Amino acid sequence: MTDDAARHREKMEKRKAVQDAEVAGKTLEKGLLIVHTGPGKGKTTAALGLMLRALGRGWRVGMVQFIKGGWETGERKAVAAFGPQVTWHTLGEGFTWETQDKARDIAACRHAWEVALGLMADEGVRLLVLDELNIALRYEYLDLAEVVATLRARRPDLHVVVTGRNAKPALIEAADLVTEMGSVKHHFAAGVKAQEGIEF
Amino acid sequence: MTDDAARHREKMEKRKAVQDAEVAGKTLEKGLLIVHTGPGKGKTTAALGLMLRALGRGWRVGMVQFIKGGWETGERKAVAAFGPQVTWHTLGEGFTWETQDKARDIAACRHAWEVALGLMADEGVRLLVLDELNIALRYEYLDLAEVVATLRARRPDLHVVVTGRNAKPALIEAADLVTEMGSVKHHFAAGVKAQEGIEF
Repeated sequence: MTDDAARHREKMEKRKAVQDAEVAGKTLEKGLLIVHTGPGKGKTTAALGLMLRALGRGWRVGMVQFIKGGWETGERKAVAAFGPQVTWHTLGEGFTWETQDKARDIAACRHAWEVALGLMADEGVRLLVLDELNIALRYEYLDLAEVVATLRARRPDLHVVVTGRNAKPALIEAADLVTEMGSVKHHFAAGVKAQEGIEF
Repeated sequence: MTDDAARHREKMEKRKAVQDAEVAGKTLEKGLLIVHTGPGKGKTTAALGLMLRALGRGWRVGMVQFIKGGWETGERKAVAAFGPQVTWHTLGEGFTWETQDKARDIAACRHAWEVALGLMADEGVRLLVLDELNIALRYEYLDLAEVVATLRARRPDLHVVVTGRNAKPALIEAADLVTEMGSVKHHFAAGVKAQEGIEF
């Protein structure tokens, strides 16, 4: 073995000891409240990735989309491969500037929340994605205190993922894991359009 | 209609005009070079979400994992549902502190890069994920200039997603879309372990 290789091995042995101790110190298992927020891309997409991983473990998963309207998406077509493992509700009516009707937007969000409550009560569901719930909270279409209290009181084995920009501080406070997606560079700025298979 | 509803509609009509003009200004279609970096969670997971969306569109997709070893993951089990649409190579041997052998790590990364080149040349593949390639570049296990030049010269219809912390500036410069995942709050800090169905 060369000196360099020996030094590398020694350094990595020490690092492994540190890593092993860290892993050994983490023993809790619990259903997580996960928030994906921030202006960058990947909030809903990372929730879809979690869904894929959970499906591979044989879990039943739920999706409630609070804002997005019923246009066809690749993700919805893809999850059809998993049959009854997936319950998917697209209950938004599109962006606020599409509907132009605040009362209708509020009614759609409240209906979506009722559906989410039903999935939270369904003990077969292990992962629930509440897509763009942060938008509904930001516009005060739902009561923040009620939503946060309900999420805090979820079943101990239920993982919930909330997506959308501008997550409320009370939600972040209640969450176990919060990732902020930051936009470093965006192809829309270079005139590239939203493309099938990438954006939807 | 109430005054409030009328004001809302008027505001949203203006916003829709702005949005429509923005969308109309984006006309390019191209295969994107996408980078998911930063210390937060969701880098690989968002790549998996893109893969799910692409699979729903009937695309063939490829995955090359540069660092992760061959342990069983939910995502790998899940994509089996899509049969020959997915080509998945887990070619890492685990973290550097697990192998403790730099020469072996370098050989594994170089082999993974050769496999990636093969998938880039396969015209049936529309989306290719190079998972943790940033780690291989950071440790200089691969030549940065060669990797960036190859990615820049990709087929015009091929989308490539590169994941991993500490993306190199030359890669960011070449990319169309870069998202930085920031860690706002992490459950590991509260003693929660990595759990099946969520972390793997």
